[in-house]
Amino acid sequence: MEKNKVVSQIADINTDFTQWYTDVVLKTNLADYGPAKGTMVIREYGYELWENFKNELDRRIKKEGHKNVYFPIFIPLSFFTREAEHVEGFAPELATVTQVGKEILAEPLVVRPTSETVICDAFARWVSSFRDLPVLINQWANVVRMEKTTRPFLRTTEFLWQEGHTLHATREEAEAHTIKMLNMYVDFAKDFLAIPFYYGKKSEKEKFAGAVYTYTVEGVMNDGKSLQCGTSHYLGENFAKVFNINFQDKDEIVKHPHQTSWGMSTRMIGAIIMVHGDERGLRLPPKVAPIQVVIVPIASHKGGVIEKCDEIKNILETKGIKVFVDKSDNQTGWKFNEWELKGVPIRLEIGPKDIEAGNAVLFRRDLNTKSPVSLNNIETTVAETLESIHCNLYQQAKQKMADKTKSVKNMEELNQAIETGNFAFAPWCGSRECEDKIKEISGASSRCTPDSQTDSIKKCVYCGKECKHETYFAKNY
Amino acid sequence: MEKNKVVSQIADINTDFTQWYTDVVLKTNLADYGPAKGTMVIREYGYELWENFKNELDRRIKKEGHKNVYFPIFIPLSFFTREAEHVEGFAPELATVTQVGKEILAEPLVVRPTSETVICDAFARWVSSFRDLPVLINQWANVVRMEKTTRPFLRTTEFLWQEGHTLHATREEAEAHTIKMLNMYVDFAKDFLAIPFYYGKKSEKEKFAGAVYTYTVEGVMNDGKSLQCGTSHYLGENFAKVFNINFQDKDEIVKHPHQTSWGMSTRMIGAIIMVHGDERGLRLPPKVAPIQVVIVPIASHKGGVIEKCDEIKNILETKGIKVFVDKSDNQTGWKFNEWELKGVPIRLEIGPKDIEAGNAVLFRRDLNTKSPVSLNNIETTVAETLESIHCNLYQQAKQKMADKTKSVKNMEELNQAIETGNFAFAPWCGSRECEDKIKEISGASSRCTPDSQTDSIKKCVYCGKECKHETYFAKNY
Repeated sequence: MEKNKVVSQIADINTDFTQWYTDVVLKTNLADYGPAKGTMVIREYGYELWENFKNELDRRIKKEGHKNVYFPIFIPLSFFTREAEHVEGFAPELATVTQVGKEILAEPLVVRPTSETVICDAFARWVSSFRDLPVLINQWANVVRMEKTTRPFLRTTEFLWQEGHTLHATREEAEAHTIKMLNMYVDFAKDFLAIPFYYGKKSEKEKFAGAVYTYTVEGVMNDGKSLQCGTSHYLGENFAKVFNINFQDKDEIVKHPHQTSWGMSTRMIGAIIMVHGDERGLRLPPKVAPIQVVIVPIASHKGGVIEKCDEIKNILETKGIKVFVDKSDNQTGWKFNEWELKGVPIRLEIGPKDIEAGNAVLFRRDLNTKSPVSLNNIETTVAETLESIHCNLYQQAKQKMADKTKSVKNMEELNQAIETGNFAFAPWCGSRECEDKIKEISGASSRCTPDSQTDSIKKCVYCGKECKHETYFAKNY
Repeated sequence: MEKNKVVSQIADINTDFTQWYTDVVLKTNLADYGPAKGTMVIREYGYELWENFKNELDRRIKKEGHKNVYFPIFIPLSFFTREAEHVEGFAPELATVTQVGKEILAEPLVVRPTSETVICDAFARWVSSFRDLPVLINQWANVVRMEKTTRPFLRTTEFLWQEGHTLHATREEAEAHTIKMLNMYVDFAKDFLAIPFYYGKKSEKEKFAGAVYTYTVEGVMNDGKSLQCGTSHYLGENFAKVFNINFQDKDEIVKHPHQTSWGMSTRMIGAIIMVHGDERGLRLPPKVAPIQVVIVPIASHKGGVIEKCDEIKNILETKGIKVFVDKSDNQTGWKFNEWELKGVPIRLEIGPKDIEAGNAVLFRRDLNTKSPVSLNNIETTVAETLESIHCNLYQQAKQKMADKTKSVKNMEELNQAIETGNFAFAPWCGSRECEDKIKEISGASSRCTPDSQTDSIKKCVYCGKECKHETYFAKNY
C-alpha cells in the first residue's frame, strides 16, 4: 500500500525520546489518534502484535484454570459508591452515560474503568457454598479512564486489557493466587516479550483503590522512567463485604470469600517499543512480531530471484515462521530502512549472486549486523537465529536495567540518580510523609518494594529512621 | 461446581418457547442478566462457545485478505449528524456520555452503535491514491444500542460483534465484495454451525441506515420467527462524500472510493439455541461446542473405570476432540440430564461391563439415541459420529426451514402462514405502502428478497400489481 515514499524520518532517540516514541508509533502503523480527546486507533500492525500478545497470555491464563467471561461495559453509578476507597480512586476519571437518545436516564451509567463492582454483584448470586469455590474467571475487554491528552498505548482514555477475578475460601489461598498471577506476568514478559521487570508491593498510596495490597511489575524504559506494566491485587474481603458475597464453609459457618484481581493491557505495547527500540525504530521480540522474517529480493527483475524468495518463504512457513516477501517496486535501500523501522527481527536478502552461491544475506535487527548464510537448512538457521535474537534482546534489556538502577543511601544520591535518568533503589521507612517528600524533591514516585530483601540494617533515605526494606523509586509514565 | 442439585427444569419447548429459551440460557450457564437495564453477562459456557465461533469466523475473514484493527468506542456526537439517514436510524438508541467525573463535556460522546463514522474519519487521512486501495479491515468490538428489556443474545443493550469495513476503487469491486462477504456468512453458518439461511436484499425500509442497499442472512427459528443473523452493506459513496474520502485514480481524476461494511454478532448464539434446541435443551453443533464429548463413568467406584475413562479421554484429545470426564459424585441420571441440557453432542458411558466387553455406550444428542460402540478405534468412531451429527443437524434444520415456509399468493394465505408460525414467501411489488400494510395486517415484516427468482409473472400479495420478485415475510426477533 505504501509506494515510492521517502524514507520515514524519526526523531533522535537520545535527544528527544518523546518525539521518537510518537514517530515510531505513527510511522510504523502501530496506531493513530482518534477524534475524541484521549482516544487512539490501533492500526493493522499494532493490532496483529496485540493479537499475538493476547493469544499467548490467554493460553497462560487458561492453563492456570481460569475461564473467560464477558461482563457489561455499563455499571450503575451507585455500585461505585459502595466500596469507599474504590470510588475515591476512580471518581475523577469516570465517563458517565446520562442520556439515551433524548431521554435522561434515571440512574447514570458508568463506562467501566475496571469491573470489580459489576462482577461482585454477580458473584453474590453465583456463590453460596464452599463447593462453588474457587471461582477463577478472566475477561478481555475495553475499559475507559478519561484522559485529556493521548500518548498512544501509554495513556489513553480507552484501552484494551484482560482483568482476572477470583474468589477463594481462605486468605492463604487468595494470597497465594495473587503471587501466582504476578509470577505469570513476570514469566510471560520474559519468555515472550524479552522484557525483564522489577516487581514487588506497591505503597499504600500507589495501590489499587479498594485492595488490601497490590503487587506490580515495573519495566525500565530506555529513558530511565518506569512503566507500570501489570498489577495483581489481593482484595481481601473488602468487596465481598459490601456486595454481600457469602458462602457456607465445610464447618457450616457462613463466611466471605477472599478475592483477587489482576490485569495487563495494551500499555505493554508501549513497553515493547520503549524497552527494545533503537535509533532506527522498533526492534520487535520474535515471538510477538507480526512478521518474523522479511525477504527482500535483490535485482528482482533477474530470472529466478522472485521464485527463489517464494521458495524460501514456503520452506520457512512450514516451520511456522511468519514471513513476508517484499515484492514492491520500492528501492532496496528504502525497503531496508522501512523494515528496520518496523522492527522485523530478521531480513534475508536474496539476489542472483547469492542464489548462485547457495546463500542469502541475513540481517539481525537486534545487532544490526549482516552475514552470509547457506540456503541449505535455512529453516534451522532462521529458527535458531530467532531464538538467539530473543535471548539477546532479553540480555540487552536486563543489562540496561542494571545500568539504569542506582543503589542510593541518601537524598543527594537519590536526586542524582533520578536527574541522570535512572531508577533509585533506596531504603525507605514506608511512611506516606517521606514518600511525598521524596516525590516533591526528586520527581520520583515509589514504584515497588520487592519481598526478598537483605538482612542488613538500613536507614530511610529521607527521615533516617531504621527500616527493613529498600524500594525502587523512579519517574514514571 | 454444581453438586447434589435437582435436575434442571426447563419449560416445554412446544407450548412456551419464550420461557424455554430463557430457561436454557440461564440454566446452562450461557448467560446471566447484568444490573443495568438491557445488559447481560456472558458466562463461561457461553463465552467458550463465542470463542470457538470467533476464532473460526476470524480465520475466514483474514483468509479473504482483511486485517484486524481497533477503533475507539467513543465517537463525537457531531460525526453522526453528517450522514442524514445514518443519524435518523440510530439517534433514538444512542447512549451518550455527557460527563466525566464532575465535569460536563463540551461535546457529548456517543458510545458506538456501529463504527462507520469514526472509521471514515480515519480513512480520509489514510487514503489518497489508487495505490492505497482496496482497504480491507475488520474489528471485533462491543457496541451499544440501548434496549429497555433484555433477551440474552437476541436483544441486549451491549453486544459483541465483528464489523468489516472496506474501500474499493470501483463500484463493481465494492458490490462484488458485498456479495463475497454475504456468501462467507452463509458458508460459515452452514459449515460450522449447521445453520441454513434465507438470504437476499433488505427492503428500503429495513436496510442499514446510510447504505445504498443491504444484504441479509435470515435464520428460521424453531417457532417460525425470523432472526436477522448478519448483514452485508454496499454503502456506495454515501459516507465517503460526507467524510471527504478521496483518492487519485490511475486516470489522475480524484474520486470517492466505494465502501462496504458487514457484521455478525453474539446474536448468533441465540440462533444456535433456537434452530437446534429441543425439549431436553441445547443441541450444540459439534464444531462450535465447548465440550464435544462427555464421558460419564458408570459405577465409578469399581476398579479401573475412572482409569479407562481417562485413557479414552487422552486418546480422543490427541485427535483434537474436546472431552470432559464427569467425575463428580452426582447421580448418573442427573449427569445424563445435565449434559443433554447443555447440548454436548456425544456422551460416552463407560462401566465395568462395557470395559469387559471392550465397548462403550455412545449417546448422540442429535437423535437422542444410544448404541454400543467398540473401544477399538474409538477416536475414529467419535470423529465420524461428530461429522455425522453436524450433517444431521444441518439436514434437520433445512427440513424444518422448508416445512416452516409457505409459498403464498394472497393476503389470506399469507395471514394463515404467519398465524400458524411460518415464513410466507410472497410476491410483493416492493412499495413501502404494501410492506406497511402487510405488517399491519399480519404482524410480519419483509425479511429479504433473494436475487435469484423464477421468470413467472407474479402479482403483489397486497395491491395485486404485477411484480418481478417474491419476498420472505415473517415475524421477527
